[in-house]
Amino acid sequence: MSTLQVLLIAGTHGNEINAPWLFKEWNKSAAIINTNGLSISKIIGNPEALKAGKRYIDNDLNRSFREDLLEDKNNKDYETLRAREIVASYGKQGKEPCQIAIDFHSTTSAMGSSIVIYGRRSVDLAIASLLQLRLGLPVYLHEGDDSQKGFLVEYWPCGLVVEIGPVAQGLLHPNIIKQTKLVLQCLLIELAALKSGSVLFPERIVVHRHIRSIDFPRSGSGDIDAFVHASRQAADWVPIKKGSPLFMKLDGATLCYKGDDSLVPVFINEAAYAEKNIAMSLTKREVWQISKNVEESICNLINGINPT
Amino acid sequence: MSTLQVLLIAGTHGNEINAPWLFKEWNKSAAIINTNGLSISKIIGNPEALKAGKRYIDNDLNRSFREDLLEDKNNKDYETLRAREIVASYGKQGKEPCQIAIDFHSTTSAMGSSIVIYGRRSVDLAIASLLQLRLGLPVYLHEGDDSQKGFLVEYWPCGLVVEIGPVAQGLLHPNIIKQTKLVLQCLLIELAALKSGSVLFPERIVVHRHIRSIDFPRSGSGDIDAFVHASRQAADWVPIKKGSPLFMKLDGATLCYKGDDSLVPVFINEAAYAEKNIAMSLTKREVWQISKNVEESICNLINGINPT
Repeated sequence: MSTLQVLLIAGTHGNEINAPWLFKEWNKSAAIINTNGLSISKIIGNPEALKAGKRYIDNDLNRSFREDLLEDKNNKDYETLRAREIVASYGKQGKEPCQIAIDFHSTTSAMGSSIVIYGRRSVDLAIASLLQLRLGLPVYLHEGDDSQKGFLVEYWPCGLVVEIGPVAQGLLHPNIIKQTKLVLQCLLIELAALKSGSVLFPERIVVHRHIRSIDFPRSGSGDIDAFVHASRQAADWVPIKKGSPLFMKLDGATLCYKGDDSLVPVFINEAAYAEKNIAMSLTKREVWQISKNVEESICNLINGINPT
Repeated sequence: MSTLQVLLIAGTHGNEINAPWLFKEWNKSAAIINTNGLSISKIIGNPEALKAGKRYIDNDLNRSFREDLLEDKNNKDYETLRAREIVASYGKQGKEPCQIAIDFHSTTSAMGSSIVIYGRRSVDLAIASLLQLRLGLPVYLHEGDDSQKGFLVEYWPCGLVVEIGPVAQGLLHPNIIKQTKLVLQCLLIELAALKSGSVLFPERIVVHRHIRSIDFPRSGSGDIDAFVHASRQAADWVPIKKGSPLFMKLDGATLCYKGDDSLVPVFINEAAYAEKNIAMSLTKREVWQISKNVEESICNLINGINPT
């Protein structure tokens, strides 16, 4: 492997329809997006769920790239089969192996456009830093969350998620399409520069490191019994102070935040996360150095040597 | 029948979860809403769809109250069975017959809070006029649309829909809960006044009368190939002028509105309507007189005589 091959995925969740629509139009008119000479594999993550207008058929595809699931031959859930299929096609031993995977999502949270990475791989951070430099995108480092594993992009030696919101599920929205197209186009420019060795990395990246998630207040029977407080709804990326309103009950009672000062909530009121018992996630804003030997890691990645 | 019995429905669409949540909390704490002494039957329209987080299981329940469907004993779709069940319980010959049905919905469109009525029944218009007077709610008169029949509230001698948006499907949202509660509370105040004969109707009501719906531009294969223009997204109730932008293609081409001047779009980009080939509906704003004999109609309604 000596050429950079990029895997672009849309519709990993079947009810996030803006990126799949963009891909479909791009298939019809190649000129819509300039690939800058990059070799690209472009796929719909979960075509059956997209057809059904649902997040998934049997299980969340974006939690299905776990070795135990992939290797358990008794598991024949649709998403497990689909994950195996994607790995067989685009994984390291695949027919069309890719080194970098970029997975395009949308969210009902008012996150704007953002990047999600799942570990501290220097190449992920490096590519995220380029998008942050160019577009100012916030980066959510989703790590240390034992309840959530098996994200698609983790399976590839380098990969990140693009999240764009707010948008309802199943809704084509002008702003979301425009933002998805913009991030996709910038990403391809940066990856082409990366490939040609002409990129200059910033020294630092601002990350929002996952600390923990907060569930909705629930009754004894498990029903949600308070909603996100109006002052916190759509206030993603805004630090939360101890004692500030977090949830409200229907009788007007306010439930306040009791945790550490100045953590930063993200994915506030993502519709798909209520079933995962997540009303929002709390992060800590940190400034990290970009690894000094990142050029070497990228070079190794492109040449098929696993990066650090 | 000499007592007013009011049927309140939430969750007629299983992915519109704010009103069902409000009903659930209300069941737990009766004091949350003041019924003003009214006799109320309160139900979840589509409990199975609510459990599944879907609009419906087999068919749209809110298009299932058609005589032909209700009487076709071979039709055993879940929603047809459920419609029969609701009619058997709360219809004219039911165990707990109701004269007025109020059906609480939410929408992904930026409609704010509004009332939908489905015909020109004087009692529907009269109750809508009271809510308009008190809360300034716009009223969408959805009539003359042969492609859509069998709305729940049409089955009752008097009934209207409350629509509140914008909110994503499956999402508890503080504003939507607050607005739903407000409209519900005002409605019960007005109905109680109606029952006691102490209500003074306004002389006029502003209605937005349905003219026609517009589909998304589609390719030969039926795929949507343009999205709602950014200047029209979330511009419900704002008159549209001939030549103003309506849709946009991904290559930047703008498709303009070619119809009559000054019609008023509603339900712009309601996620559930793409499958119904509706990108938005066009209405005409009209000022109507409230029938002079509306008190008599209401009186007849309450006393079980079919109103005009």
